[in-house]
Amino acid sequence: MIDINADLGEGFGPWRLGDDLALLSIVTSANVACGFHAGDPLIMRRTCAAAVRNDVAIGAQVSYRDLAGFGRREMDVAPEELTAEVLYQLAALDGIARTEGGRVRYVKPHGALYNRIVRDPVQAAAVAAAVLAYDPALPVLTLAGSVLHEVGGLTVVNECFADRAYTPEGTLVSRREPGAVIEDVHAVAARALRMAVDGTVEATDGSEVRVDARSICVHGDTPGAVELATAVRTTLERADVRLGPFA
Amino acid sequence: MIDINADLGEGFGPWRLGDDLALLSIVTSANVACGFHAGDPLIMRRTCAAAVRNDVAIGAQVSYRDLAGFGRREMDVAPEELTAEVLYQLAALDGIARTEGGRVRYVKPHGALYNRIVRDPVQAAAVAAAVLAYDPALPVLTLAGSVLHEVGGLTVVNECFADRAYTPEGTLVSRREPGAVIEDVHAVAARALRMAVDGTVEATDGSEVRVDARSICVHGDTPGAVELATAVRTTLERADVRLGPFA
Amino acid sequence: MIDINADLGEGFGPWRLGDDLALLSIVTSANVACGFHAGDPLIMRRTCAAAVRNDVAIGAQVSYRDLAGFGRREMDVAPEELTAEVLYQLAALDGIARTEGGRVRYVKPHGALYNRIVRDPVQAAAVAAAVLAYDPALPVLTLAGSVLHEVGGLTVVNECFADRAYTPEGTLVSRREPGAVIEDVHAVAARALRMAVDGTVEATDGSEVRVDARSICVHGDTPGAVELATAVRTTLERADVRLGPFA
Amino acid sequence: MIDINADLGEGFGPWRLGDDLALLSIVTSANVACGFHAGDPLIMRRTCAAAVRNDVAIGAQVSYRDLAGFGRREMDVAPEELTAEVLYQLAALDGIARTEGGRVRYVKPHGALYNRIVRDPVQAAAVAAAVLAYDPALPVLTLAGSVLHEVGGLTVVNECFADRAYTPEGTLVSRREPGAVIEDVHAVAARALRMAVDGTVEATDGSEVRVDARSICVHGDTPGAVELATAVRTTLERADVRLGPFA
Repeated sequence: MIDINADLGEGFGPWRLGDDLALLSIVTSANVACGFHAGDPLIMRRTCAAAVRNDVAIGAQVSYRDLAGFGRREMDVAPEELTAEVLYQLAALDGIARTEGGRVRYVKPHGALYNRIVRDPVQAAAVAAAVLAYDPALPVLTLAGSVLHEVGGLTVVNECFADRAYTPEGTLVSRREPGAVIEDVHAVAARALRMAVDGTVEATDGSEVRVDARSICVHGDTPGAVELATAVRTTLERADVRLGPFA
Repeated sequence: MIDINADLGEGFGPWRLGDDLALLSIVTSANVACGFHAGDPLIMRRTCAAAVRNDVAIGAQVSYRDLAGFGRREMDVAPEELTAEVLYQLAALDGIARTEGGRVRYVKPHGALYNRIVRDPVQAAAVAAAVLAYDPALPVLTLAGSVLHEVGGLTVVNECFADRAYTPEGTLVSRREPGAVIEDVHAVAARALRMAVDGTVEATDGSEVRVDARSICVHGDTPGAVELATAVRTTLERADVRLGPFA
Repeated sequence: MIDINADLGEGFGPWRLGDDLALLSIVTSANVACGFHAGDPLIMRRTCAAAVRNDVAIGAQVSYRDLAGFGRREMDVAPEELTAEVLYQLAALDGIARTEGGRVRYVKPHGALYNRIVRDPVQAAAVAAAVLAYDPALPVLTLAGSVLHEVGGLTVVNECFADRAYTPEGTLVSRREPGAVIEDVHAVAARALRMAVDGTVEATDGSEVRVDARSICVHGDTPGAVELATAVRTTLERADVRLGPFA
Repeated sequence: MIDINADLGEGFGPWRLGDDLALLSIVTSANVACGFHAGDPLIMRRTCAAAVRNDVAIGAQVSYRDLAGFGRREMDVAPEELTAEVLYQLAALDGIARTEGGRVRYVKPHGALYNRIVRDPVQAAAVAAAVLAYDPALPVLTLAGSVLHEVGGLTVVNECFADRAYTPEGTLVSRREPGAVIEDVHAVAARALRMAVDGTVEATDGSEVRVDARSICVHGDTPGAVELATAVRTTLERADVRLGPFA
């Protein structure tokens, strides 16, 4: 059984990003923005309601406080402050989700925070402290090899990216390098299938790398995002891979 | 038994307002700012921790989204949006309070929102919808005569103001008028005692008005605020009035 | 000679609104958002650069400080504060425009502020005070009949709306009423032509109303906005109406 | 002749920081916050008016967009965006200052941005690009040894810190280390005098280090800040050091 996750509810005020309704019929887990990089309370509530209607698991997509930069800029936030900020976002979304008959099932940090806590043990511990204080059973979605795995008591779940190139070491090729993002729909769908069935992906040097993931992330805000996500889902279903939330 | 409430945690980032620690040894209920007019997540968490240590009940001081205006400017927020915004703040504070061994016991809207929902049934219903969706048992602190009282299913509790002049009709004299705020410490303490014991206050024309309140609000951010709050508490204690949270 | 104006640069961070580049080939004046309801510094700079390249006059689209509400919610901002806020936005945009070889040629308040200062002399005077302090020669775009006209020393220019229904009194029909917005492209273009050539529009009761305007506003962020704006421009050009900035 | 500078106007909305009026009678240059880490438009305008009345030179204290973190957290802002953000703040303050009879005479980046551009040539060039685009004659205040000095065409002026310990290499001792901040009023005043007269300071190892500065920075928001700044000024005046803006 494999999960498909995508970022949702990433509008703010008058602005929208991605086709949330289309994605909700494809994914099994929705990373819902919590207001710090995107997502206002009304968008959060509507996204939760739509996720519940579509039987999609709700995750808290917590972020640095950086609306103008969409949470994509690394910030040196003090640990105690970061813990409080994650807690604030997580609790706000969970409270909203509950009024719609759902609840937060997992946490997925967003953007620069996601990347930072893969390698920074201090910020990783700060995010983990928020999750553990709120609900120790909540899993956090991250990359294989993340230092989050070293935080005692925290449930960590790995995800993989069907449309991203992997190094032979199993890390993602930086977006700044050519070929980092795979755009061919068939190639992406084939990689997703191999990730789900074999737990592996072909790295840039042709070698086979283990991804060891329970969820495949698809992007929601790129051109052709819905088509690509649809191809991933259809390919998995045709191969009789069971789809469902990891959480 | 009477409650004393004050606004707390109304700093933001590097800024502080009022002497929270001093007030926490005086009041029995703390209206904790939730981030929309004041209060960042770390301040919220520290204020909740201090409130729990001092056995002070935590209330969610929800506001319009207006940091620059400190929530003091009336805003025409659409009802559905206002409901979501109140829900967001309430859930965030409650989640944070629970990690410190407390929880939100009541809701007190702040500033312009407080005044607006005394007379605007649409915004009053929007605020009430958030509280009812989150926890129908949570009381909302307001003024006697507020249209909030007309919202079905909502628990509404009245408060009174020891340092504010009252009209013969039982409403507060506008701050724009002379004499609206009573600054004499002895007068304020005497009024608080009469409010607590008799449930009345002397109006501007000398007539006696019923206040019908279970909580007395003291201000935390004015010069002499702590001295005045101390005088109110001491006077009540000397008269053997029992003090305790209304919620 | 008539001007066509539209709102531009109304994105923020990762978000965009409307097709700015298409509109810049149609309009003669661009109301550029200044960061308070939309528009971040980089979007402002790029929009100014594109306006200069297209020989389009730059106007400062100043707003209440309300990103979440897109400046569409009326706010009771104190006059002195409103003056400072308008000044801040106006000066920021002008400074940015000058680095791109342009400059701010006029001011057009946005959204709820636009509507408020049509009828509220206090906020109208506050906005005017900012413009007069910055550059007394800068015209402000507003509706005929606005109280802005009564502010001494201020240059006020009227605009009209080709796609909005007018009352027999010459005011706009509220958007809440049916028929307030005219969607038929041919009807809108025909109204624009009559506004430009005769200075009149047919009101809802069939009577003829004077609009007395030097600029026609077209909307940039509605579905079909570009098609509609194109029709307005083409119709005016075919009738040999000269197009150019009013400022 | 030496200049004394301090950060001013660092309140926001209802909050204040430091005693601006007292400092304005001591310093000769005021680094006025521009709204991104502190300072709202009304505070900016009042601060400029007070600076003009006190014959104090106005500088633009530009910052990362980080109100919650007071601009103290390093951020990976893209260069083009950083340039636009600095331009926005600089132009806004200059426009406001001009309505009060002043104008911006220099730029002093704030907090984490100040420290970052001492050593990061990319962000340094981005800040410089904004200043050069706005007014190539405007000097930027920084530390001796900053990479800002390497930006062609930019006027850079050094400042020194009377209350900070210096390494033998002439850099500031990190605030995280003990003894980084000197609190003794007499010691601080004596160091300021030596900086002004000899252009040197005693480093932590007792060696003499050149500071090569035209301005001495005093802090405005620490306890005892006004007393300390007064001692610096008085000591300089008694030694017949001429005080005046560097710009």
